[in-house]
Amino acid sequence: MPERDDIVVMKFGGTSVAGPEEIKRAARRMVAAREAGNSVVAVLSARGKTTDELVASAYEISDRPDPREMDMLLSTGERISCALAAMAINDMGHNAVSLTGSQAGIVTDSSHTKAKIIDVRADRIREGLEEDKIVLVAGFQGVSTDSRDVTTLGRGGSDTTAVALAAALGASVCEIYTDVTGVFSADPRIVPNARKLPVVSFEEMLDMASSGAGVLQLRSVEYARNYNIPIHCRSSFEDLPGTLVLPESETMERPIITAVTHSTDEARVTVIGVKDEPGIAGRIFAALAEANVNVDVIIQNEPVHEGALADLSFTVETGDVVPATDAIAGLGEICREVRTDEKIGKVSIVGAGMRTHPGVAAKVFEVLGEKAINIEMISTSSIRISCVIQADQVPEAVRSLHDAFDLGEDQILTEAPTGEHHQVAPS
Amino acid sequence: MPERDDIVVMKFGGTSVAGPEEIKRAARRMVAAREAGNSVVAVLSARGKTTDELVASAYEISDRPDPREMDMLLSTGERISCALAAMAINDMGHNAVSLTGSQAGIVTDSSHTKAKIIDVRADRIREGLEEDKIVLVAGFQGVSTDSRDVTTLGRGGSDTTAVALAAALGASVCEIYTDVTGVFSADPRIVPNARKLPVVSFEEMLDMASSGAGVLQLRSVEYARNYNIPIHCRSSFEDLPGTLVLPESETMERPIITAVTHSTDEARVTVIGVKDEPGIAGRIFAALAEANVNVDVIIQNEPVHEGALADLSFTVETGDVVPATDAIAGLGEICREVRTDEKIGKVSIVGAGMRTHPGVAAKVFEVLGEKAINIEMISTSSIRISCVIQADQVPEAVRSLHDAFDLGEDQILTEAPTGEHHQVAPS
Repeated sequence: MPERDDIVVMKFGGTSVAGPEEIKRAARRMVAAREAGNSVVAVLSARGKTTDELVASAYEISDRPDPREMDMLLSTGERISCALAAMAINDMGHNAVSLTGSQAGIVTDSSHTKAKIIDVRADRIREGLEEDKIVLVAGFQGVSTDSRDVTTLGRGGSDTTAVALAAALGASVCEIYTDVTGVFSADPRIVPNARKLPVVSFEEMLDMASSGAGVLQLRSVEYARNYNIPIHCRSSFEDLPGTLVLPESETMERPIITAVTHSTDEARVTVIGVKDEPGIAGRIFAALAEANVNVDVIIQNEPVHEGALADLSFTVETGDVVPATDAIAGLGEICREVRTDEKIGKVSIVGAGMRTHPGVAAKVFEVLGEKAINIEMISTSSIRISCVIQADQVPEAVRSLHDAFDLGEDQILTEAPTGEHHQVAPS
Repeated sequence: MPERDDIVVMKFGGTSVAGPEEIKRAARRMVAAREAGNSVVAVLSARGKTTDELVASAYEISDRPDPREMDMLLSTGERISCALAAMAINDMGHNAVSLTGSQAGIVTDSSHTKAKIIDVRADRIREGLEEDKIVLVAGFQGVSTDSRDVTTLGRGGSDTTAVALAAALGASVCEIYTDVTGVFSADPRIVPNARKLPVVSFEEMLDMASSGAGVLQLRSVEYARNYNIPIHCRSSFEDLPGTLVLPESETMERPIITAVTHSTDEARVTVIGVKDEPGIAGRIFAALAEANVNVDVIIQNEPVHEGALADLSFTVETGDVVPATDAIAGLGEICREVRTDEKIGKVSIVGAGMRTHPGVAAKVFEVLGEKAINIEMISTSSIRISCVIQADQVPEAVRSLHDAFDLGEDQILTEAPTGEHHQVAPS
């Protein structure tokens, strides 16, 4: 008696379904996985620039499009991808069925344009699999329990859809197909000898995603960690393995530092002359949270004597500068001045081995110091050190750190690589 | 105590929602109707060429796209229009909510790409109206009872959605907004003095729609007649009244002939040398029905003596020529030869007054004869006479008949018209 098929969830991003050829290529991958004996569920994003175009059409109509209607609008893109991919699979002699987020049982709260998944009722998916069908699910969307309205999960939400389905279905793996071949030790556009990482732990991936690595959406990695779903992050345009994201217990011994990440999409807000009285910082950050502004790094210069004025600096995403300054202005006369600086960037090093290796921070400061790169703010987690620096110095900082911690392909390999995307065993 | 608001159903076609300006214009109409004290439900088509583009993208993937997936694909266009229109209305300070066909309770059978409405469960629409909202419904689509799948109603199906909703909601009128100002006594592109008809009966409109008048979808007119829903067919680009389609009892005394219609999208199939034995014609038309071919005019030349061979001719839509000849070929050796002619056209005159006025057919034949136009086939209803002629003679035939029956604007009016779209009282 044959064992029950392994369920594989495959997610294809926008560039992987951009045109008819890409859709057929993705369909062939699904068919190959089915023919290899797996039950296949595929989550698709909207094609290419479809979502951007739909957003633009909404802003042609209204400066503040109604969020419920925005979701109704944006959810169409993924349905188009799924219907077309189902046609392609049916043409290849296999059976496919496409499901909307609602039909797939992705139940969310009612926070339109940024809904959270609260339940997955995957009955129709299981029915489809039992009927020997490849099941295609429109990513990025769900249905709200209370109002039965279409909701969307926010940018990159299709990754979260895929991981949530993998958890609900007990899938053996969630494969995320994109236009890059995996997760790298640094951005290859800045560091030519950046190495594709064969394995990364959930914790490292979380710190990497939050500090600038754009391959996986942060929320999907959190979801995968919470439900222990292995993610295989790989290219839809070639057949080589990509990067596995696994529980730390399943990753082998790791180098101290795994990757250097960076971001230039940040700005600093400095609140100058804040009266140093209890609760004032609390009021500022409560106002920022109220305005949905995510604050990253924070530093406060303590006043030198009691009753004097303090300065408070924090970084936010560039797009949040105006809401952040508006929120502080809304608190009344709490400071002398608010300054903003959009010419900052952030460079981070991430590595689970950092926990047991003291001296990493010292080395980071030394490397940047040697290059005359001034560190303006610092934040750390147990496996990450982030430095806020001037934006124009970010590329040099990334290259210097990548080199100093011996992360390059040529620096790790003992054998000569056979190609640009040579698969590297974990060291 | 105020009376319950009148419910008005407004339907906007593809050109009426083509771009942001058109969508805002349509939204202003809905808002104006609401401010005039009506409860407003609007059914929207997909924008401009959206449906054509989606169909093309399906054929880029597959030569025979799966019908279920085709419906999933095509149903997105109307949702986009509705979401954008809802944003526009919300921006104007009114409340709007967009609903998919499924959310609006349009329940259909499972005939994908040509589904029939079998029930309208308009609870969510009524909820929306009670909450003082303008309710936007995605036209052309529904949900199948048995499989809970998205279905579509076929080309022009949004008209049917609108009339079905008007019937279910007890609306006072169903307004169909298009890019023409109403129903005309002939195609104004062929007959410059064609007259906009202020009133047409359901029966006349049915015969006009089936004989070439493209303004309203045939099925929607049948639905309106069955449920006694007045249709107001008008332009979304100007404010003048258009054409009312009403029960015959409510139309005033009519001229003998109301309109001349035509079509050049037809082809003739001639089955030559059919053995004249009982049941053979039945087998041919059963095979054509099986192949979903709609047959229009039929003539059979009786053989002159018993046991001889007969010829059978019929007309079909041009796109049905291949399925029709295939269907006949599938019957085996039942005739000597099958010939097709795609260079035919059809000219028809329609008018409820024809019933009580003999001699109309004689006048038609006389008029065409004077112009040396050969009538190749004839079919009639109690209020319509259709003649199949050579396609290149159709414009002259239309003009001659329009003139001979005094249908022109200048010929009906007793006062001079004040403009091209001058509103004319029924004579």
